[in-house]
Amino acid sequence: MKYFKYITITALSLMLFAACAKEKEATEEYTEVSYYKMDSNGDLMRPTGYRDWVYVGTPVTPNELNNGAAAFPEFHNVYIDPMSYKHYKKTGKYREGTVMVKELVSVGDKAATSGIGYFQGDFLAVEVTIKSKELYPDEPGNWAYYGFHTDDAGNLPATQKPFGAQHCNICHQTSAAEDWVFSQYYPVLRAAKGVGENVNPEDSDKR
Amino acid sequence: MKYFKYITITALSLMLFAACAKEKEATEEYTEVSYYKMDSNGDLMRPTGYRDWVYVGTPVTPNELNNGAAAFPEFHNVYIDPMSYKHYKKTGKYREGTVMVKELVSVGDKAATSGIGYFQGDFLAVEVTIKSKELYPDEPGNWAYYGFHTDDAGNLPATQKPFGAQHCNICHQTSAAEDWVFSQYYPVLRAAKGVGENVNPEDSDKR
Repeated sequence: MKYFKYITITALSLMLFAACAKEKEATEEYTEVSYYKMDSNGDLMRPTGYRDWVYVGTPVTPNELNNGAAAFPEFHNVYIDPMSYKHYKKTGKYREGTVMVKELVSVGDKAATSGIGYFQGDFLAVEVTIKSKELYPDEPGNWAYYGFHTDDAGNLPATQKPFGAQHCNICHQTSAAEDWVFSQYYPVLRAAKGVGENVNPEDSDKR
Repeated sequence: MKYFKYITITALSLMLFAACAKEKEATEEYTEVSYYKMDSNGDLMRPTGYRDWVYVGTPVTPNELNNGAAAFPEFHNVYIDPMSYKHYKKTGKYREGTVMVKELVSVGDKAATSGIGYFQGDFLAVEVTIKSKELYPDEPGNWAYYGFHTDDAGNLPATQKPFGAQHCNICHQTSAAEDWVFSQYYPVLRAAKGVGENVNPEDSDKR
């Protein structure tokens, strides 16, 4: 009975440590998981939470500059998942499982106190590309492309099958600066490439 | 001596728990700290790491649409610190200590395979606004504005004093949609406002 107190304290302490360590492991594990999810049919579930990912850049090619019929009349806000961003900073490469999201936003106002130009309006749709040798062994560069569109931007499809390579992949293959990614238009990626996993590119010479 | 083993194990277990709990606390503490830092003179140190914050939107008002002399000829990529974003989702308000960063990026290419338009070129400068009743009791809305500019974007000033209210604050006060923030041009903020601390706005009706 004399030992009992110590054994109890020891057991309780070990349990506390185990619980604490488990919680920590769960947090770290999150950063290892994929940022995409397939349903039981192998279709991509529309990603959410990407507005907390790393933003890389925004082109805009409005209708009025393209004879009233732009192929891509919206702002395109482009994000990369944070784990792949970290990997890209470390290696300068897009890892297996890289997810990039392109959020389509309408051209809203064209004038403000700051001047004449283009201001972001409403969210319209979401497009996604994933690089995976495992999932897309036959896609050029192992990149597949998905689009989540409807007329009601508040009610986008929950799942989607990839486009055929002729719809997106071929243009990325032909014109993107590096590994099917248009990084020539994404200054955040250009500055981050190989800068070091734990370096802030905002602080490096490459900024 | 018989107790010694248990006392040792107990002590070790408690140390392990304490170390683990401390690490966890440090991680959580990070999310509580400010996202700005002042030097010993009270000047703002140029923030870094903000490309990992939450992106809110990008207006562009190029020279050629403003008689060759735009007041703001660059893309403006705007970020909010993640803690303030979370607070804004929960309350719909900008908390004490909110930091927003505006990264200035040149207009680069004006044509690509996607069409005629504006594509982001090079990083030029960083501007910052902070809301703090404690730091800026006399600034309208308690917002102060800073600019980190030089001719060499790779070598921006390390610290900066705030602009006088007549330079930035007055225009924000007059024309910004809400609490000195031009959220009318930042769809991410419009969708996030009061949606719930742990809700992904991408998944809500407001998207």
